[in-house]
Amino acid sequence: MVAKQIDDLEISPFPTIEDRLREKSLKREAVLRAAVRTFNARGFQAASLDEVAASLKISKPTIYRYLGNKEQVLLECVTRGLEMLQHAAAQAQAEAGTGLMRLSRFLRRYAEINMDDFGRCVIRTDDAALSAEGRRHFRALKAKIDHAMRGLIADGIADGSIAPLNVKMTAFALAGALNWPARWHDPSRDMSAEEIAGAMVDVLVQGLAPRG
Amino acid sequence: MVAKQIDDLEISPFPTIEDRLREKSLKREAVLRAAVRTFNARGFQAASLDEVAASLKISKPTIYRYLGNKEQVLLECVTRGLEMLQHAAAQAQAEAGTGLMRLSRFLRRYAEINMDDFGRCVIRTDDAALSAEGRRHFRALKAKIDHAMRGLIADGIADGSIAPLNVKMTAFALAGALNWPARWHDPSRDMSAEEIAGAMVDVLVQGLAPRG
Repeated sequence: MVAKQIDDLEISPFPTIEDRLREKSLKREAVLRAAVRTFNARGFQAASLDEVAASLKISKPTIYRYLGNKEQVLLECVTRGLEMLQHAAAQAQAEAGTGLMRLSRFLRRYAEINMDDFGRCVIRTDDAALSAEGRRHFRALKAKIDHAMRGLIADGIADGSIAPLNVKMTAFALAGALNWPARWHDPSRDMSAEEIAGAMVDVLVQGLAPRG
Repeated sequence: MVAKQIDDLEISPFPTIEDRLREKSLKREAVLRAAVRTFNARGFQAASLDEVAASLKISKPTIYRYLGNKEQVLLECVTRGLEMLQHAAAQAQAEAGTGLMRLSRFLRRYAEINMDDFGRCVIRTDDAALSAEGRRHFRALKAKIDHAMRGLIADGIADGSIAPLNVKMTAFALAGALNWPARWHDPSRDMSAEEIAGAMVDVLVQGLAPRG
């Protein structure tokens, strides 16, 4: 009992460096999440960091301190979404199975991410709203995802699991179909993201004609 | 010869009512075409009727006289695009063939129209930029096209030419894929609209797996 009491007394009311770093990272994450939801709900141009600050009961300079100005906050949001897509592509590339099986798994994750906060922001961001430098960064990241999708399609064509289609047009058809839910999916009203992703990928992989 | 000469003398330098109506209609059309191209190139919010007027060397009040204010001009542009899509749907519905054949023809026209000026404007218009009334009008017209596409899919399922898919998810997958080129197709650089429409509809109808 004596040792316990001494322990309690020794808990410092002052946070350690680790505490402070953890707290800073949690705060930064909360700001980013509030920002992406505001951008998605109101559109980047109409949204203001004042609204984001108000939703967290913090000041605008606090947002600047954690994430920078409005464009920097947006770039952080779309970078996060594109990293999630990049991660899904790397996972699919590393998996076993035919090219078509790996592509199908990637497409389901791709669709699900696009219905989640950061993926939705990637799709809804019109790059005309960005500075030249921001636009270059955004386009370069998007090109990586396109490249990964084309690679998986080409793998499937090479191993015979996918028909010898035009790779670029196929990538555009798939991406177009699976980007679309980011514009209309309302989780409070529609089927879940997983169900929608599954149904859409089924249509895209199997096509429209009756299955043998 | 005497009669001919009298005829020539009788050509009035003053335009008839028909002349004036025809000229008015041609001018209105030129304004509409210049406006849709400006909206597509710059985005509705960034575009101004001053630019449209300057491109035609006319005054802004002349645009107001022919087409109304900026939102009215935009609504005329998207209505034109949606009427083209509606016409394509009606044609496909009236044609012979299985549901899948009629749907495929509609999808090709749908994709082509979306790469043309007015269809491109339909896809690129974010209805958050519209007044409540404008948004209602725009959404009601888009719902008609969605309804027509779902009808053609249901026809194909009923006659056995299309697999028993979820009609709503299938319509979303097809529309999403074929709306996408309106955001990236550049006729000066890419394949023609007809080639792209053909390649994309082939992927969507046949799916990815090798064909028997």
